[in-house]
Amino acid sequence: MKNFYKVGLMLTVSALLAGCGNLTNSSLSSHSNGTKTSKVTTTGTSKSGQYSTLLQGGEYHTSAITGLNSESDSDNASNPKSFEAGLLEISKKEFSPDKYFFQEGKMISASQAQKWLGRKSKNNPEGLNPEDNGSTDADKRNPIYLQQLLEQDFYTQNDKNYDLSGMTIGLSMNDVDYYTKEKYGAKFETKISDEQRLSEGREMANEIVNRLRRRSNLKNITITVGLYKQNVNDSLVGGTFFNYGVSSPGQKKVTNWKNISQQNQVLPVVNDEKPINSNDSEDFSNFKNHIQSYFSNLSGVTAQTHYQDGKLKGMAINITTQFYGVAQIDSFTQFVQDAAGKYLPQQPTIEIKIQTVQDPEAILVKDYNTKQYSSHVFASY
Amino acid sequence: MKNFYKVGLMLTVSALLAGCGNLTNSSLSSHSNGTKTSKVTTTGTSKSGQYSTLLQGGEYHTSAITGLNSESDSDNASNPKSFEAGLLEISKKEFSPDKYFFQEGKMISASQAQKWLGRKSKNNPEGLNPEDNGSTDADKRNPIYLQQLLEQDFYTQNDKNYDLSGMTIGLSMNDVDYYTKEKYGAKFETKISDEQRLSEGREMANEIVNRLRRRSNLKNITITVGLYKQNVNDSLVGGTFFNYGVSSPGQKKVTNWKNISQQNQVLPVVNDEKPINSNDSEDFSNFKNHIQSYFSNLSGVTAQTHYQDGKLKGMAINITTQFYGVAQIDSFTQFVQDAAGKYLPQQPTIEIKIQTVQDPEAILVKDYNTKQYSSHVFASY
Repeated sequence: MKNFYKVGLMLTVSALLAGCGNLTNSSLSSHSNGTKTSKVTTTGTSKSGQYSTLLQGGEYHTSAITGLNSESDSDNASNPKSFEAGLLEISKKEFSPDKYFFQEGKMISASQAQKWLGRKSKNNPEGLNPEDNGSTDADKRNPIYLQQLLEQDFYTQNDKNYDLSGMTIGLSMNDVDYYTKEKYGAKFETKISDEQRLSEGREMANEIVNRLRRRSNLKNITITVGLYKQNVNDSLVGGTFFNYGVSSPGQKKVTNWKNISQQNQVLPVVNDEKPINSNDSEDFSNFKNHIQSYFSNLSGVTAQTHYQDGKLKGMAINITTQFYGVAQIDSFTQFVQDAAGKYLPQQPTIEIKIQTVQDPEAILVKDYNTKQYSSHVFASY
Repeated sequence: MKNFYKVGLMLTVSALLAGCGNLTNSSLSSHSNGTKTSKVTTTGTSKSGQYSTLLQGGEYHTSAITGLNSESDSDNASNPKSFEAGLLEISKKEFSPDKYFFQEGKMISASQAQKWLGRKSKNNPEGLNPEDNGSTDADKRNPIYLQQLLEQDFYTQNDKNYDLSGMTIGLSMNDVDYYTKEKYGAKFETKISDEQRLSEGREMANEIVNRLRRRSNLKNITITVGLYKQNVNDSLVGGTFFNYGVSSPGQKKVTNWKNISQQNQVLPVVNDEKPINSNDSEDFSNFKNHIQSYFSNLSGVTAQTHYQDGKLKGMAINITTQFYGVAQIDSFTQFVQDAAGKYLPQQPTIEIKIQTVQDPEAILVKDYNTKQYSSHVFASY
């Protein structure tokens, strides 16, 4: 494992830009550490602000630790995506896509991550979650704080090689630890406070950085750590990051901790939930009412909203229809576009997906801080 | 029913253009035929070349005859969409979207269409399909030629009213008539030749026009008729139009019949099927092989292709993945965009849908005769 930080040998750097269409294939020798390494290629970027990805041996590398969980019974389907997407955003703050190439983490192995996600015990001295104190009382037991780990690696190009120069570690921390008192028994909950989550998260981050620094290839790279708060199981939206810090090359702990203010919410709000921003919530209600009064057979109109520093940054709207006539979908898409321009807030990134239970039928998108939507109705021949 | 051709009374003409965002609500009186009519609004168009739709009483009107079938046991899921979409294209040749407003047909009632789709018999003198001659032999029986009907209505704006000024009728004709010899029995097939389909289709079209002209409100409008050949049940692509004609105002039959040359095909071709165009087929294979060699876990890469006059006009590509990590989908989308620019033909409209079994993950599209793809990766918060 320890020579993976320097990949090279038989490089194929592919400047694959759409429309440009020329693929250069150059076979080059390299100066890696005497190990057999495989052909490295990169994907081009389709948008500025996105990473080029390193492909190894021609294939996309997936991290072995993605999806590993602690013993806590978390099952919110939105958490994994928002955890990964949010961590990429944090990475971009430290590792500019203009300079760094991305690859999913390969330094932390699955067996290692599994130990770290476990409780500390005689058999598992590396466990980052606290020892089992024997109690099954929600308020007296030691909860599982750390639920998932994620690693993202960042490489810089050095002549014919790509060198590992940065790493981002994500710690997904529980808001609620779901546990059972006996196997297959009823589910109980230990609520974790924001203060506990922050202090436990920072402590674990330091311990992880400290462990990683023991490896010679990780001593002198920048390691960024993001702390993520998982959303509870019954939410239809994922969690958010609340803190991140940086450990500069050589440092054995994380310094420069910074707060991140993010919130997610599903609209329309249900029960007695308070909207994060009542204007946004009303805008969405007006949009929803408008299209529902003109087109019957809409089974659902909901939005996931994403706030940063109190500002609405993104909306992902889902419209489920029970019709799929071509002319009707065309007409409905136009109508939705008109309604979106009229009722929805202008600043955030907005994505509107129109779908039947079987298939997506149409999509409308607009970028952050622009007004103009582009739409596409899916073809079928 | 007979006053439906003139709609008006309490008009709300809404110039709903995205970004423009002003909705004018004007209540106007009207000079309709003394009947109570409901408020008419229109949707704006999001693209040039698309119809504005008339909404009635605020709602989109769906035709009552859409989806009605003859007794033949046709079940290709792609036929209905390609039938409707193709008929809209024919309509655009006669009724320019710049001048005409679209509404799904409301002149032919469901009970009427059901009679027309039936076999001619003592109880059903209006049946357009031939009498049952008693034979169950595939070559001796009279097959069901006409499978479905579709009506599209076109209105022009006349001061404060919208007048019905054009109509397009689609006749979906069988390629194969699927029948059983006894209820719930085995399925047998009568193959219908191109010549039979053409002559039967034209004759039925004349009969339909003749019947419609008996109504005072349909005497003096242009009626266009399109003849569609249904695709067989085991195809993964819909059928195509092969003929269309026009009946000018007052004419009791269709004249000016014109051939339409269209073909659909799924790529990669299977078994011993011959590709419509071997260059296109090879281009697609190269694209498919390229992305499959770089990304494992792709369960399927297929394309629906649509040809007009021997030229590839459109491709709808479907890529099914087994992964849904955010970074991986991002990276894959970039990679697909590069590969599409490099391997796929440049002229046709191309749509590439990347999805897991649960959800669409990303979409790439380019217009006809352009090179540049635009892509969108679906968000999740």
